[in-house]
Amino acid sequence: MYGAIEAGGTKFVCAIGTSELEILERESFPTTTPVETMALVVEFFKKHQAQLESIGVGSFGPIDIHRDSKTYGYITSTPKLAWQNFDFIGSLKQHFELPIAWTTDVNAACFGEYVAGNGKGLSSVVYYTIGTGIGGGALQEGKFVEGFSHPEMGHMLVRNHPADDFTGSCPFHGNCLEGMAAGPAIEQRLGRKGQTLAEDDPFWEIEAEYIAQCAYNTTLMLSPDVIIFGGGVMKQQHLMMKVHQAFERLMKSYVKTPQLSEYIVTPALEDNAGTIGCLALAREAKLHS
Amino acid sequence: MYGAIEAGGTKFVCAIGTSELEILERESFPTTTPVETMALVVEFFKKHQAQLESIGVGSFGPIDIHRDSKTYGYITSTPKLAWQNFDFIGSLKQHFELPIAWTTDVNAACFGEYVAGNGKGLSSVVYYTIGTGIGGGALQEGKFVEGFSHPEMGHMLVRNHPADDFTGSCPFHGNCLEGMAAGPAIEQRLGRKGQTLAEDDPFWEIEAEYIAQCAYNTTLMLSPDVIIFGGGVMKQQHLMMKVHQAFERLMKSYVKTPQLSEYIVTPALEDNAGTIGCLALAREAKLHS
Repeated sequence: MYGAIEAGGTKFVCAIGTSELEILERESFPTTTPVETMALVVEFFKKHQAQLESIGVGSFGPIDIHRDSKTYGYITSTPKLAWQNFDFIGSLKQHFELPIAWTTDVNAACFGEYVAGNGKGLSSVVYYTIGTGIGGGALQEGKFVEGFSHPEMGHMLVRNHPADDFTGSCPFHGNCLEGMAAGPAIEQRLGRKGQTLAEDDPFWEIEAEYIAQCAYNTTLMLSPDVIIFGGGVMKQQHLMMKVHQAFERLMKSYVKTPQLSEYIVTPALEDNAGTIGCLALAREAKLHS
Repeated sequence: MYGAIEAGGTKFVCAIGTSELEILERESFPTTTPVETMALVVEFFKKHQAQLESIGVGSFGPIDIHRDSKTYGYITSTPKLAWQNFDFIGSLKQHFELPIAWTTDVNAACFGEYVAGNGKGLSSVVYYTIGTGIGGGALQEGKFVEGFSHPEMGHMLVRNHPADDFTGSCPFHGNCLEGMAAGPAIEQRLGRKGQTLAEDDPFWEIEAEYIAQCAYNTTLMLSPDVIIFGGGVMKQQHLMMKVHQAFERLMKSYVKTPQLSEYIVTPALEDNAGTIGCLALAREAKLHS
């Protein structure tokens, strides 16, 4: 059996699953401090220690992904002070002498969709989550797109929609993609949560425009086989059609993408993409150990 | 000996070189029609046919890069009408029964810098040319970043500089990166070529801002080890410092990149990046044939 840890900024999801990526047991708890939260993580996996072969971790970031670095396996410069420079993998290794896979939360979800969702059988897959923040990850032929670090796609530049005078909620960049289109940006702009808006609220055209700009830039930069948008904001099922329309307006037929209904999509695994991705990464870590 | 064809929209550069990527002979001619231009290409390589082991082609695009496609090796939907749906590789194969490597002109230049320039020894390399158009290519661990097609990075969205009211020269997108920052955009905006402007002309701050936006988005999307900017506009040696400053203003220390003087650079191979890249691709094609 394999272990999965989706370490999100708000909550942790721990799970146990099979080599067929079936989730057998799952538990979640709020992200508080490393001491408290990791104690619950360890407790969860101790119950299954006898059968556990490896663990896959998808963590909020930024994280250190370079195996030859002294701080490999650390969460690095996160604004969540208690977690700054926390040795995530080291603290797991104290309790579990197992192969441990380590990547970002969005990379893990991307991997989940690649092995078992809307990226299955494709060569190049991009995954975004649009929720309390915006993050993105990309895979090409099974390898994560990365270099000096992992991507931070959520902070790409967007152009203000002409009907939108919001100045943005990103503490770093103001009106970057996350600052304009993540859940908190919606709430700060409108004084209410996105979920409470009607489907025909004109705001959704604005939201769709930012997501389409993201899909447009992603198409030009990576030319992937599929772009998957998950996260709380994408639960608005009417939103995807508006994104497709805005994408077409931006692209002006310059690049012939695959058909939009198959190219810009929501996750087939829905909220399980991250957990299934972590299980699949654990399976790989075991295989290569 | 290896052959190189840099097929640009304005001119073709053909060359012969050694396995050490030394250029022995080179000729260039204007890009007119496939019949005329390809006749000159064939004539050039016929002279060296006895020693020629393989040919590497870096072509203007869009091109078909999928080996399992019926139109693999074609230039596809280019605005250069005479070259639309031209079977580039097929027309070479009629004269040369050799392994032929096929990629975009910017990918070839990226590969050149990767094997012998400022990307040497690095895992992830991005190359842009800023000239009569803007194009970009990326490599990770020796493989081109691609999916349903090759990237078209030059058309990413940028935000107008507050002091710039130019509406852009891109026939598709108006004020995308190419529409704002390529050579023709400079000339159309100012009524004179960029080369004629003084170093302290305030326009260079505007140009640097767009290039910095490009570097910023590239950092967030790909997190590469190096971003290389070549092409005619980058011959302005004072420009890179302004790009570094604008990049820092945009990034606001959000991502800790490598030192900018080594991270955002011009090509070590200068104008030879494309030719050397094509030679190196020819060498690879021979190796894997």
